[in-house]
Amino acid sequence: MTAPHQLSAFEAAKKLQTHELSATALVQSCLARIEAREPVLHAFAHLDAEGALAQARALDAGPVRGLLHGLPLGIKDLFDTAQFRTTYGSKVYAQHRPALTAASVTLCQEAGAVLMGKTVTTEFAYFTPGPTANPHNPAHTPGGSSSGSAASVGDTMLPLSLGTQTAGSIIRPAAYCGVVGYKPSLGKVTGAGVKSLSYTLDVVGGFGRSVQDVGLLGAALSGDMRLMPSTPEPARLKVGMFATPWWSEVTPDTVSAWELATKKLASHQLSDVQAPTGFEQLMGLQKAVMGFEMARALSYERVIFGAQLSARLNELLSEGMATSGEQHAHNLGNVAQWRARMDALFGDNDVLITPSAQGEAPQGLAATGDPMFCRVWSLMGLPCVHLPFARGALGLPVGLQVVGRFGQDHLLLQAAAQLHQDLLA
Amino acid sequence: MTAPHQLSAFEAAKKLQTHELSATALVQSCLARIEAREPVLHAFAHLDAEGALAQARALDAGPVRGLLHGLPLGIKDLFDTAQFRTTYGSKVYAQHRPALTAASVTLCQEAGAVLMGKTVTTEFAYFTPGPTANPHNPAHTPGGSSSGSAASVGDTMLPLSLGTQTAGSIIRPAAYCGVVGYKPSLGKVTGAGVKSLSYTLDVVGGFGRSVQDVGLLGAALSGDMRLMPSTPEPARLKVGMFATPWWSEVTPDTVSAWELATKKLASHQLSDVQAPTGFEQLMGLQKAVMGFEMARALSYERVIFGAQLSARLNELLSEGMATSGEQHAHNLGNVAQWRARMDALFGDNDVLITPSAQGEAPQGLAATGDPMFCRVWSLMGLPCVHLPFARGALGLPVGLQVVGRFGQDHLLLQAAAQLHQDLLA
Repeated sequence: MTAPHQLSAFEAAKKLQTHELSATALVQSCLARIEAREPVLHAFAHLDAEGALAQARALDAGPVRGLLHGLPLGIKDLFDTAQFRTTYGSKVYAQHRPALTAASVTLCQEAGAVLMGKTVTTEFAYFTPGPTANPHNPAHTPGGSSSGSAASVGDTMLPLSLGTQTAGSIIRPAAYCGVVGYKPSLGKVTGAGVKSLSYTLDVVGGFGRSVQDVGLLGAALSGDMRLMPSTPEPARLKVGMFATPWWSEVTPDTVSAWELATKKLASHQLSDVQAPTGFEQLMGLQKAVMGFEMARALSYERVIFGAQLSARLNELLSEGMATSGEQHAHNLGNVAQWRARMDALFGDNDVLITPSAQGEAPQGLAATGDPMFCRVWSLMGLPCVHLPFARGALGLPVGLQVVGRFGQDHLLLQAAAQLHQDLLA
Repeated sequence: MTAPHQLSAFEAAKKLQTHELSATALVQSCLARIEAREPVLHAFAHLDAEGALAQARALDAGPVRGLLHGLPLGIKDLFDTAQFRTTYGSKVYAQHRPALTAASVTLCQEAGAVLMGKTVTTEFAYFTPGPTANPHNPAHTPGGSSSGSAASVGDTMLPLSLGTQTAGSIIRPAAYCGVVGYKPSLGKVTGAGVKSLSYTLDVVGGFGRSVQDVGLLGAALSGDMRLMPSTPEPARLKVGMFATPWWSEVTPDTVSAWELATKKLASHQLSDVQAPTGFEQLMGLQKAVMGFEMARALSYERVIFGAQLSARLNELLSEGMATSGEQHAHNLGNVAQWRARMDALFGDNDVLITPSAQGEAPQGLAATGDPMFCRVWSLMGLPCVHLPFARGALGLPVGLQVVGRFGQDHLLLQAAAQLHQDLLA
């Protein structure tokens, strides 16, 4: 029999709404899984077991609150929470308890979610990792920066969790942990109360174990009910297979996943998409924009607490400060031009399929892998979903991401649900 | 003789950099002015006289720190400050002391500014006013939401202050208080650590008493040295006079200012700009986007502290929550289309001149006036500068705003400096 913690958010939500499953039973099941696995995975920066049970009991005693009624939710420790310590993954904020809670967290709570606590993030969502291990092999990284959110969902400690992406912090850990990650269109979900790193890039999204799961979460966060899961209707999709200019960086595992996808999706209309001239520059452009904006956004930490930041972060901030505002203005103009060209990249395709990461999660916990296959989509502000559907040579998860048109998150999720079904068939 | 507090930021900066004037003397002069006038104006939510003097003495004892060396700066109480209580203009946060300081404030401090304290904002930068009065007649509103920042600079309590605009919260109070207000292009200045209300609309900017002043501030905030003031070179500008579809709402004072501008700027190439079809819908579109996004961004306050919010704010938040995410997605698509049409609105004009407000500051402190002439530029994300150059029937300041192309803040400020010189000639 399936234990409650093993249910996907979408499956659990149905049982919770009909009272076939109580929130208390689901939370207890998740807590048991956490107790068993947390000593190995270190997914939590702060776990509130008692508080979660109290929330669950209160929900069970009342009417159905909303879309997320009774669903345990992990919150990346980059989101302010008045009820939990909030460290942003940094020593600087080791004892920080914000006065208020991020709007996205309150929206989930308003929809009935049970706040389980905070999940580990890298230092200010950049590269210096926390202690979290990969649920499929603890000798490997879970990816970053939403490390704990991806690992906890991948391990069935939790059905849902919140994350953020500035470079590749949702899609990459989703790929490494074998879960579905959803990065909405830029601006679709409020970022109020989330540590701000880059106006041009930051996006709030999350993790589940199916496309339906992240659709449920996305609907609660954005108020857009078109994101709500529906039974995928068999449709022949036009899918652009976009290997990107960085294809030479993928491992044989990703090549195999690509070939598998081509076979499994043969009933759709697949076509190869070529990168337009100059597209390869977008990687460097994303890095420059991110460095400039993070160096300004983290000014207080940079100026007051520089000695407590990692060498790697200080290096980024120094480089960012060395970029002039004139150059940044020029870069933003360039970004705007490229964003306007994205419709042409899609052509008549409904969605693009493209790598999420080079391959399996790299070994070791000292680094979180490379976001190279995510940077350009963050820069373009486009919605993305990672779909896990294969295993690599080491038995770790491998998959691909589906990218949608700007603001068309509902069409992306619809297509991704159908494609995921076909990929897993 | 001119007292130091009467110097514009640009004039004072020159004297401070050459040590003709000490930061201590300037701060003392400002504090004397504040002491004399604050009982009438109530511009400050928190004044840190001793701390400001200590900062000034430290600056005087060291090398020139940067562009704002020794300049006293007022900070709208919507910006987080670790050193000062931060209320966001709300009872909810009456005793709130943030753990960190807004990035823009630290950037100014890094450039040598003296942080004088917090200036009064309306409740969460919406319509419910604080106690601040207009420096030109305390029976009239200073405008909002950056009420204290505009009033303090207008009264020569301070040479510079920080503000934000979501609807018309920089340009409108600048107009009512007779100061220069600068709203940068969307995304040009980091908003990290400023209470977030609307991703699509929020902009950090500020106030001075000349275009050069806000150029100095803008350069420190954005790192874009092209914003630095230069002596305006006599150039023949192409200026579009854009009366907008809301011209019937202006008072005779604004009509006179418009006619005066037409005369004073006769050496430039002026032409009337017509609103494209459908432009009048942008007012309602701005309101809908702002309501939706504020209702989500203020979720914690709405859900947990609803009873402590003003009726007017609760009304906005309820309306915003009643707007669906589908409708909002549609609205954002509409915004994107209109933003892409702005180049056509400018035609071959360098800048547009358009009303900042209906007329003089309305009587009474129970309301802060209408942002109707600012909403559309906030929605379009375009940079704006308010230029004061006339007086109305009641002797209160009147002026007009200059609007630039997106991302071309340096060209806007250059043009505005020249136009202001001509308007004041």
